Amino acid sequence: MDTLGVVSAPRITLDDVASAAGVSRMTVSNSYSRPERVAAETRERVMAAAAELGYGGPSPVARTLRRGSTGVLGLLLNDALPYAFSDPGAGAFLRGLTVEAADADLALQILRATGPTARARVNDAAVDAFVTLALADDDPALLAAVERRVPVVCSGSPALPGVPCVTVDNVGACRRAAEHVVAQGYTRFAVVTWSLGTGVFRDRLQGWRRGLEAAGVDWSEVAVHERAGNNRAHGLQAGHRILDDVVGSEERYAVLAATDVLALGVLQAARERGVDVPARLGVVGFDDVEEAETAGLTTVAQNLFAQGQECARRASGLVTGPTRRHPTRLVVRRSTS
Amino acid sequence: MDTLGVVSAPRITLDDVASAAGVSRMTVSNSYSRPERVAAETRERVMAAAAELGYGGPSPVARTLRRGSTGVLGLLLNDALPYAFSDPGAGAFLRGLTVEAADADLALQILRATGPTARARVNDAAVDAFVTLALADDDPALLAAVERRVPVVCSGSPALPGVPCVTVDNVGACRRAAEHVVAQGYTRFAVVTWSLGTGVFRDRLQGWRRGLEAAGVDWSEVAVHERAGNNRAHGLQAGHRILDDVVGSEERYAVLAATDVLALGVLQAARERGVDVPARLGVVGFDDVEEAETAGLTTVAQNLFAQGQECARRASGLVTGPTRRHPTRLVVRRSTS
Repeated sequence: MDTLGVVSAPRITLDDVASAAGVSRMTVSNSYSRPERVAAETRERVMAAAAELGYGGPSPVARTLRRGSTGVLGLLLNDALPYAFSDPGAGAFLRGLTVEAADADLALQILRATGPTARARVNDAAVDAFVTLALADDDPALLAAVERRVPVVCSGSPALPGVPCVTVDNVGACRRAAEHVVAQGYTRFAVVTWSLGTGVFRDRLQGWRRGLEAAGVDWSEVAVHERAGNNRAHGLQAGHRILDDVVGSEERYAVLAATDVLALGVLQAARERGVDVPARLGVVGFDDVEEAETAGLTTVAQNLFAQGQECARRASGLVTGPTRRHPTRLVVRRSTS
Repeated sequence: MDTLGVVSAPRITLDDVASAAGVSRMTVSNSYSRPERVAAETRERVMAAAAELGYGGPSPVARTLRRGSTGVLGLLLNDALPYAFSDPGAGAFLRGLTVEAADADLALQILRATGPTARARVNDAAVDAFVTLALADDDPALLAAVERRVPVVCSGSPALPGVPCVTVDNVGACRRAAEHVVAQGYTRFAVVTWSLGTGVFRDRLQGWRRGLEAAGVDWSEVAVHERAGNNRAHGLQAGHRILDDVVGSEERYAVLAATDVLALGVLQAARERGVDVPARLGVVGFDDVEEAETAGLTTVAQNLFAQGQECARRASGLVTGPTRRHPTRLVVRRSTS
């Protein structure tokens, strides 16, 4: 099913309620949308008539059509919807987005960008603007949103012509992360990343490669573990694959992970195998989520809350003009030093 | 502002695009909603004409009006929207809700139930059904939702006639929690709770009172700390107030908290004051969020994920009939034993 069940019944109109209650159409309308303008007794009479007839109030969709805007901000996510309520990085971004949306009295509508019906879902969404979170460059839902000619703001990536993209310098930040692990004396390297179909993760890969190659590392010897999702289980599984090599080697390995969540999975794998961090294995994440601090994870810190705020402000037209990259900072903790 | 900025411009219609591209209205419509039915070349011609004219596709609101349903599930929250993306209990509930919504190809729209415009927001929301999370009994947004005569499902509370309420036996669960701290030898008691305007928290208070009074405790000597929000800072602040009494007393104190998040704040206050848990202070929470286990918090476990799933199924008509209370279980950990 793609819609909620709708019960078919003779359609009761505002006029029916007005005549049953002996008031004007405007009084019925005001009883719903501006109750403070109607005497309490009159409103009670209207509501009693509405209840008897089974009338549910003026159609919000018809009202929206007259007004020309919906007061709703659409959010396109590239994964199952529950991700928004479990991933700490997505959570920080969404808190920033919703703080601004609430200030502007906008509701937030969450839509999946993936799946066969994504394009139809975007075309059907009654929203005034879209914000996207880390979508693939050729995501059909993103392209459908752009074709609708409502404001679209991308976070992370991609950078499409005419579409503002709120992001950080992923290449530069990851280059510095790679230089850090080389400076700490690690001699073998592996990468764990979410989908490389997404620009933000290709940029991070590019940054690590530049940093390692500048230090003379042969990139063809760096194992790249690409995973279909961003959660701890994926990081744990990739971590065990990498540790198969670590335990049979005399060299010190460093893992560069595209998100803290993946990095925390790698750290868990090291604990399960009894491999000493940072002596035998170093781990660097990206994001600086709350748990990175308690876990002692070295990471690239970015302010996802502020990026979410900027996306909402741009989507609602409060901020315009060219975007500037948000700052990042390498935070060195126990996992590499 | 209550809507996103809309640029006024001469309105371009589907007919304009059809005549510019030299195709039928249906071909333009299909190019947007069923691109697989249109030859790639034809669709490109349509999109080029649309781009030149500045046409953004058929109006989703008009389409929704024709179809009679929106494919959107509305969620009414009793706090600022960002709460949904930070509170672990709300997160578990929302993951369950969104797993089911995604299965049914429904989008999720999050609305604030609070504030002066809440009633208008509910009347204007283009949704097919509402789910509410722990709203006050007289919440105006909830009453507006019920008046709209679309399906409404309450989680936690209140129990309104004709409106299914998905919840647990809060009175019984808290009575058992109170009996537990008495059995553990605590002799002085305090309560930390979120707003008592919400039925679910009044029920928990009632349960603690019954359990303590059954053990001969004078309820008038139990300090009730009611807080306006549910976060760790509120729990920390209430915890320090309680600890002011604990440190000057020879008796063993137990704190009964309405949520784990508040209880974790109380535990943090005890750490800051160097008060021994469980020797001098016992703490019991409610929910069994993930951090309760790592913190060693005794708590009442409930499955908020399953409750979220049931709310979505009831809102979409997949489940009907009377509700049954979800089970709870007292999980005893280091904070009381």
